[in-house]
Amino acid sequence: MADSPNCDLKSLSPLQLFERVTEQGEKVRALKAGKAPKDEIDAAVRMLLSLKLSYKTTTGQDYQAGLPPRDLVLINNGPAKEEDEDFVDPWTVQTSNAKGVDYDKLIGHFGYSKIDTDLINRIERAIGQKPHRFLRRGIFFSHRDMDQILDAYENKKSFYLYTGRGPSSQAMHVGHLIPFIFTKWLQEVFDVPLVIQLTDDEKYLWKDLTTEKAYEYARENAKDIIACGFDVNKTFIFSDLDYLGTSTGFYKNIVKVQKHVTFNQVKGIFGFTDSDCIGKISFPAIQAAPSFSSSFPQIFNGKENIQCLIPCAIDQDPYFRMTRDVAPRIGQPKPALLHSVFFPALQGAQTKMSASDPNSSIFLTDTPKQIKTKINKHAFSGGRDTIEEHRKYGGNCDVDVSFMYLTFFLEDDDRLEQLKQAYTSGELLTGELKKVLIETLQPLIAAHQERRKQVTDEMVKQFMTPRKLAFEF
Amino acid sequence: MADSPNCDLKSLSPLQLFERVTEQGEKVRALKAGKAPKDEIDAAVRMLLSLKLSYKTTTGQDYQAGLPPRDLVLINNGPAKEEDEDFVDPWTVQTSNAKGVDYDKLIGHFGYSKIDTDLINRIERAIGQKPHRFLRRGIFFSHRDMDQILDAYENKKSFYLYTGRGPSSQAMHVGHLIPFIFTKWLQEVFDVPLVIQLTDDEKYLWKDLTTEKAYEYARENAKDIIACGFDVNKTFIFSDLDYLGTSTGFYKNIVKVQKHVTFNQVKGIFGFTDSDCIGKISFPAIQAAPSFSSSFPQIFNGKENIQCLIPCAIDQDPYFRMTRDVAPRIGQPKPALLHSVFFPALQGAQTKMSASDPNSSIFLTDTPKQIKTKINKHAFSGGRDTIEEHRKYGGNCDVDVSFMYLTFFLEDDDRLEQLKQAYTSGELLTGELKKVLIETLQPLIAAHQERRKQVTDEMVKQFMTPRKLAFEF
Repeated sequence: MADSPNCDLKSLSPLQLFERVTEQGEKVRALKAGKAPKDEIDAAVRMLLSLKLSYKTTTGQDYQAGLPPRDLVLINNGPAKEEDEDFVDPWTVQTSNAKGVDYDKLIGHFGYSKIDTDLINRIERAIGQKPHRFLRRGIFFSHRDMDQILDAYENKKSFYLYTGRGPSSQAMHVGHLIPFIFTKWLQEVFDVPLVIQLTDDEKYLWKDLTTEKAYEYARENAKDIIACGFDVNKTFIFSDLDYLGTSTGFYKNIVKVQKHVTFNQVKGIFGFTDSDCIGKISFPAIQAAPSFSSSFPQIFNGKENIQCLIPCAIDQDPYFRMTRDVAPRIGQPKPALLHSVFFPALQGAQTKMSASDPNSSIFLTDTPKQIKTKINKHAFSGGRDTIEEHRKYGGNCDVDVSFMYLTFFLEDDDRLEQLKQAYTSGELLTGELKKVLIETLQPLIAAHQERRKQVTDEMVKQFMTPRKLAFEF
Repeated sequence: MADSPNCDLKSLSPLQLFERVTEQGEKVRALKAGKAPKDEIDAAVRMLLSLKLSYKTTTGQDYQAGLPPRDLVLINNGPAKEEDEDFVDPWTVQTSNAKGVDYDKLIGHFGYSKIDTDLINRIERAIGQKPHRFLRRGIFFSHRDMDQILDAYENKKSFYLYTGRGPSSQAMHVGHLIPFIFTKWLQEVFDVPLVIQLTDDEKYLWKDLTTEKAYEYARENAKDIIACGFDVNKTFIFSDLDYLGTSTGFYKNIVKVQKHVTFNQVKGIFGFTDSDCIGKISFPAIQAAPSFSSSFPQIFNGKENIQCLIPCAIDQDPYFRMTRDVAPRIGQPKPALLHSVFFPALQGAQTKMSASDPNSSIFLTDTPKQIKTKINKHAFSGGRDTIEEHRKYGGNCDVDVSFMYLTFFLEDDDRLEQLKQAYTSGELLTGELKKVLIETLQPLIAAHQERRKQVTDEMVKQFMTPRKLAFEF
């Protein structure tokens, strides 16, 4: 926004170039309409052509009016074969590969950093304990600026955690727990404040829901989140519909982000069109704002520059790429990120679990019997068609959903490795592997249900009341 | 948004038709890309052509992708002469006619109703006193649904007033007082609650300002508004940046409006482009929301359906056309409106006074000497070039800015009529007319300054604190 008109074109992003071409086109039209002198028009046209050339050189595409360069994750998994593309945005996850999205390609495309052994070791040294299985097993696989968080932590500087959930229904499935399980661990090992955003406004905007219903889902989901075991003295859970009207800092940050993001940008990042409602178009700022500590004056004593760390699934990264782009322009630190892979649907890793397809998911409300039936009936198997073949050739853990789920939920590394070897060698049959998963998930979910029963409305109210937490700032 | 796909095309607005064409075009592209059966593609193409034809019949223009029908006030004042156009939106008022914008044509174009003698008489009967000079003299010249407000009032049903100001600088000029002078009168004669919105967020988004500065301007402007003599027990003044974070109802209404307005619509109404920031694009919802009583639960006891009456200058109407379009779809009553003409610049009625051009305006902070100098030096005269000619042919009150200002500020109808006749006949010279204006404005502004001095920070705080007013709901 603060570009000088003569700044070096090479330093411009594709979107900035797109906007320069658009502006110049408008200028040429205005000059022609205003019957400006011929030499003035000619100069403007020359400039336009030169901008279009820069655009083509940078993006490899011809400039098309109204069609900004699309910035989504659309990655070819190999030589040009249309069916081999991964597609990831906050609303869609699609890949044709049964192993799931190729996360290494995502890293290459968007410039986040892989969580490698060095980083995991550094985390282990910093916290003085074994890293979470989600780190050990590459379930949280990439990051942005996690090293800065560790620098700060080692220098006794504070940071805070921010994660969230779109409360689209009362029913949460086990995949929804991943960021919360990991965030809880992060909070415990680093001992920092945590804010959890429930985007009931987003769900109102995207779905056929009333604001009341969306808020009700938010409160219901809060119960499942609280049941993960968060400490009420260190955690603030908020609904947008509620908190926006009770915080002196939140809206100010929202409007600051909204001033520094154009429609072209959200069109490029999120694929919005002109027929989308203005609520959707401006919503990304509402998910961005909790990345800035001044959105929570009650927690941070009005302090503006507390660094934020966001654990989230990779499909949420577009919001935070946008946030990190805006942050320095509104004088705020960029949030750091830890990205998880998607939690696969029972039918396979081509898509993520979805609460709207009951057979794709194991819900937190499922009975032991439902869990058993769903896994036995729907969990995609990497085993062979007959027992004989399986014994002979072995199963394929890379595409077997039961094995994938065990990597998420089975704590014991040695046991997991044994299972893998036994399944791959053909010693372990699909039914037996499924049995291990069923026996792992049933008690986990039963325990969750037990804890959730203990969550009272009064506790929800406590977690959702804006207040000081057990930290001094 | 709730249109059935087969509803009658004739009942659609140009914008709705535009959106139908766009959707159908997208459908055709998707079918072709998906290699759908030929007959399916053909049927979709036929539908597309038929929609395009309807669009052309309705709008008189060919459909152009990405260019929705523009809905601004762009009115030809007669046979096709480019220089004879009036142009009105919330940011621009331009006409080439020295008499100012042709308000009757605006009425014809947008379907609001003229405030005619019948309506003025009805108001007089309802309130049992002489209507304000702004009504008697056509300064508030048109309305939407004022008859419904009077119906309600006569049936002892309550309503409330809503007006506002964009606090773009500390310095307000006399033109800024027009809606407040009139609103104060309305509040007194109808005895109803009043809410006044200060859109400091809008100014932050549009201008090169910090949020702190915009909020400071809002508080400074509040002092000038309070100095108009509003009753603190009946009036709530609020800054968006402040109130949005303290109201449980305001954001909910904003997001409801945002869900029901598309980018195409705000593009058509306000002329936004893809390069505009998402804050501007979603802002119209923030000006819309105070039209609904549930934005002020503290005043209306949470009641949702209290009718709203908005006195404002005509350039604000686009916001409320949009609001009235959305209202029934979110289960709210449409706000009624009373529109004023623009307050002309000293240089003439072609444009409205602007706070950003000091010589176009008489400021509320001007000294008697500055007032005198500005009027004598800058007020456009409808008089003749020489005294002889003036005596012979007379002056032209229709274009004389001093006379126009007197219609705004001189209370005495007889005196105004005498001045008009004397000036038109040539009996009264330009200098003499200007002297009358100077002697009218100097004491008015001095009195305002005196009252403003009495406005303390404590009073501003009182007016701006969300609270119950002296009315039961």
